[in-house]
Amino acid sequence: MKYIAKVEVSLKPGHSDPEGETTRASLVELNYPVEDVRVSKVYKILLEAASIEEAKRKVEEMCRRLLANPVKDDYTINIEEAE
Amino acid sequence: MKYIAKVEVSLKPGHSDPEGETTRASLVELNYPVEDVRVSKVYKILLEAASIEEAKRKVEEMCRRLLANPVKDDYTINIEEAE
Repeated sequence: MKYIAKVEVSLKPGHSDPEGETTRASLVELNYPVEDVRVSKVYKILLEAASIEEAKRKVEEMCRRLLANPVKDDYTINIEEAE
Repeated sequence: MKYIAKVEVSLKPGHSDPEGETTRASLVELNYPVEDVRVSKVYKILLEAASIEEAKRKVEEMCRRLLANPVKDDYTINIEEAE
């Protein structure tokens, strides 16, 4: 079976987000009343697995091993069957 | 009123995604059965507006002027009242 995993990797609260801060400053310069911007990254992963549980377990492992930095990142995983 | 806008900027289908391709290759090297990876970016924007309609209009404008490249990017916007 094929599954699509949507993994959102974001900075833990309290960690500074230089890209978000730069974006905020640019938007303020364009006169938008923006108070805060935080940037995160989404990976849409098409993978093969025997079941949705196995897909979830594999994607958790990918996050720990490659996609997220445990010191500074949080992540959320959503998985569904690929059409 | 304060609103939180969640803007997801992703590459249009057909545009090559070098970061996604590199991530896919790294995951395959770690023996994960991954066929495709696409990377997109999410901006969480805290802004001031008189109504949710005005917030939406402003965020649409921000996307066109700064956050998305009309040649290669698609974007989606979700807005809710900030707590």
